[in-house]
Amino acid sequence: VRLGPDDARDRFASARVARLATSDPAGQPHLVPIVFALAPGDVLYSAVDAKPKATTELRRLANIRANPRVAVLVDFYDEDWRRLWWVRADGLASVVPAEEAVEGLDLLASRYPAYRGARPDGAVVRVEISAWTGWSGDA
Amino acid sequence: VRLGPDDARDRFASARVARLATSDPAGQPHLVPIVFALAPGDVLYSAVDAKPKATTELRRLANIRANPRVAVLVDFYDEDWRRLWWVRADGLASVVPAEEAVEGLDLLASRYPAYRGARPDGAVVRVEISAWTGWSGDA
Repeated sequence: VRLGPDDARDRFASARVARLATSDPAGQPHLVPIVFALAPGDVLYSAVDAKPKATTELRRLANIRANPRVAVLVDFYDEDWRRLWWVRADGLASVVPAEEAVEGLDLLASRYPAYRGARPDGAVVRVEISAWTGWSGDA
Repeated sequence: VRLGPDDARDRFASARVARLATSDPAGQPHLVPIVFALAPGDVLYSAVDAKPKATTELRRLANIRANPRVAVLVDFYDEDWRRLWWVRADGLASVVPAEEAVEGLDLLASRYPAYRGARPDGAVVRVEISAWTGWSGDA
């Protein structure tokens, strides 16, 4: 069954990990897991490590700078497929310096203990979510 | 630490769910969870329900027909971030009718009990994987 936007948002917000899809100018999708926080107004924040891991962190930032359209997915899997659900957030992303993402970094630190001792100080991905789409099995 | 391709493939193959990213011609990424099976030669199969769920199933197929480049992600999350890992498979996808995907449907049925009683008879997504990329925390 299709989920309403409020139910979809609540399920998404409860998840600890999501996946961020970007696309480069040639149409090659790129996909990485992210930790994230939702702010009021349907804004999602995700931090990039201060020391980017090889090219992966850089690719998502380069893609967003060239094409801000992104999709972010949360899903739940169970061997009983009636219990499956997923929620996708579509939106426009931007890359902002840590100094301009204090709200987002505060939210991330409050959600993830690992961020409290080592607050991210690299770039932050900020997504303005324009649509929530979700689906749930029957159970 | 970066994972070697064999380790990456083994971890990916052990997962029960993955996420498929496609991109439409305008560069809008699309993202859905999938169940999948890997065949020899680094080919991934994923079935589409015979009765597609609204537009979601159709979107991934339309995207692949217009742009075969896809990414598929498996990830593991833990509150101890040293235990995190993920593997991404990049490749070229095609949409094949069920009659031409017997190997894939057999593999899917052997992996997922839910498919044994109700073998998928709709379209099958077939991905020729060209690159395995993976990362694991320190633990």
